[in-house]
Amino acid sequence: MERVICVISYDGTQFSGYQVQPNGRTVQEDVENALQKMHKGKFIRITASGRTDAGVHAKGQVIHFDSPLVIPEENWKKALQTLLPKDIRIVDVQKTTEDFHARYGTKRKEYRYRILNSVDPDVFKRNYTFHVPDKLDLQAMNEACTYFEGTHDFTSFSSAKSDVKGDKVRTIYEAYCYVDGDEIIFSVTGNGFLYNMVRILVGTLLEVGKGRKTPATIQEIFEMNDRSQAGKTAPPQGLYLWDVDYNEKQRSQV
Amino acid sequence: MERVICVISYDGTQFSGYQVQPNGRTVQEDVENALQKMHKGKFIRITASGRTDAGVHAKGQVIHFDSPLVIPEENWKKALQTLLPKDIRIVDVQKTTEDFHARYGTKRKEYRYRILNSVDPDVFKRNYTFHVPDKLDLQAMNEACTYFEGTHDFTSFSSAKSDVKGDKVRTIYEAYCYVDGDEIIFSVTGNGFLYNMVRILVGTLLEVGKGRKTPATIQEIFEMNDRSQAGKTAPPQGLYLWDVDYNEKQRSQV
Repeated sequence: MERVICVISYDGTQFSGYQVQPNGRTVQEDVENALQKMHKGKFIRITASGRTDAGVHAKGQVIHFDSPLVIPEENWKKALQTLLPKDIRIVDVQKTTEDFHARYGTKRKEYRYRILNSVDPDVFKRNYTFHVPDKLDLQAMNEACTYFEGTHDFTSFSSAKSDVKGDKVRTIYEAYCYVDGDEIIFSVTGNGFLYNMVRILVGTLLEVGKGRKTPATIQEIFEMNDRSQAGKTAPPQGLYLWDVDYNEKQRSQV
Repeated sequence: MERVICVISYDGTQFSGYQVQPNGRTVQEDVENALQKMHKGKFIRITASGRTDAGVHAKGQVIHFDSPLVIPEENWKKALQTLLPKDIRIVDVQKTTEDFHARYGTKRKEYRYRILNSVDPDVFKRNYTFHVPDKLDLQAMNEACTYFEGTHDFTSFSSAKSDVKGDKVRTIYEAYCYVDGDEIIFSVTGNGFLYNMVRILVGTLLEVGKGRKTPATIQEIFEMNDRSQAGKTAPPQGLYLWDVDYNEKQRSQV
């Protein structure tokens, strides 16, 4: 058996999310179906770095699987791409060893969130950005970002419905906003993220950008450990799982 | 009766084109259905500046219709938008007089074509650009553009299956290419366009960009009046009906 790493990019618009579920199209199911065809009907389980919700996109999701086939990396890429729908793209395929694990080996993940900050909505970006027509204070948003950085209990910034057991302490290595044309992009890199966390960070940043909260309020929200103190959960279509990094030994492989 | 002008923007991905046809979703049908709801079941015919094919987008398509309703312009915009699917957007609504005609009154139309000129395809742009990984010579393409400008018989640059009666002489006022990030955009403005004409101009420009034709070849292709001398028809998803201009009296209204 060979362990294979795939970096995949997908447009989440037409998916009910990454993970297989009884109803609706999922990324996992489409990739597993493609692999099953390549393996003459044999089911091949894939493991991803993590799930993404319905409508959320991925620029660099990482998955691994084990296969009895012996195929050069470039041919894996071509064969899989041919069997996949157009909204999933194989970015890269690399062979690895069995100590690589796409989920448990993650070291850093970067998410980005695209805010379309224009007066009028854009029909071509409706599935790829969150349209916010209000004037936004980029400097205040970036000041707020500095409060996200570091190691904190993110209880206030995760879904109250979250079924995560254990602590909600996570480390954010870097968080910032930048302008790209008529968009404001939020980038956040951390060692892990709770359910809905990035979308709640964005919802809170927007409160700051609109002048309804000061950047320093972020500190108070952390201290209250209360989801209702943070901003609304921003909608899924602006969110992208951008990049996944693995530990030193494995990083060179992805 | 009041004559109403609407500027609409639509994502052509999920449409079988602009014009009503027996099978498949069309922009015209969706807009007429919305108007019919507003008019308590009464059918309202709309007239557009021209058709667009399946997969082709519009940033500023112009339509007109006559309505017995007396509604302020801003309310027309809101009411129609509420009844339309998310891939059609009302950009502007203006009342006009009955001498305005969205099709026969056109003076200039601008089309743009987005070429994604990157090594790798982009899953998020697959429905909005034509991916061309080859190195393209922008200067040569712009030189070729100058041959398009002026008044010519565009027989070589229109679909051989075209059912257009009469001459194929059209005037191009302006044609040029420019870089926008990882894209090359072709803009062409003229007094009218034949079936598939912009997509054939793009296909021919790409031959020039790849070095397979010299810019001066464009002149020879015009002279041959032979569709097979020009480049392939570029795919629909890169094409946008960008802007429609009306004659002096009417221009101020749109």
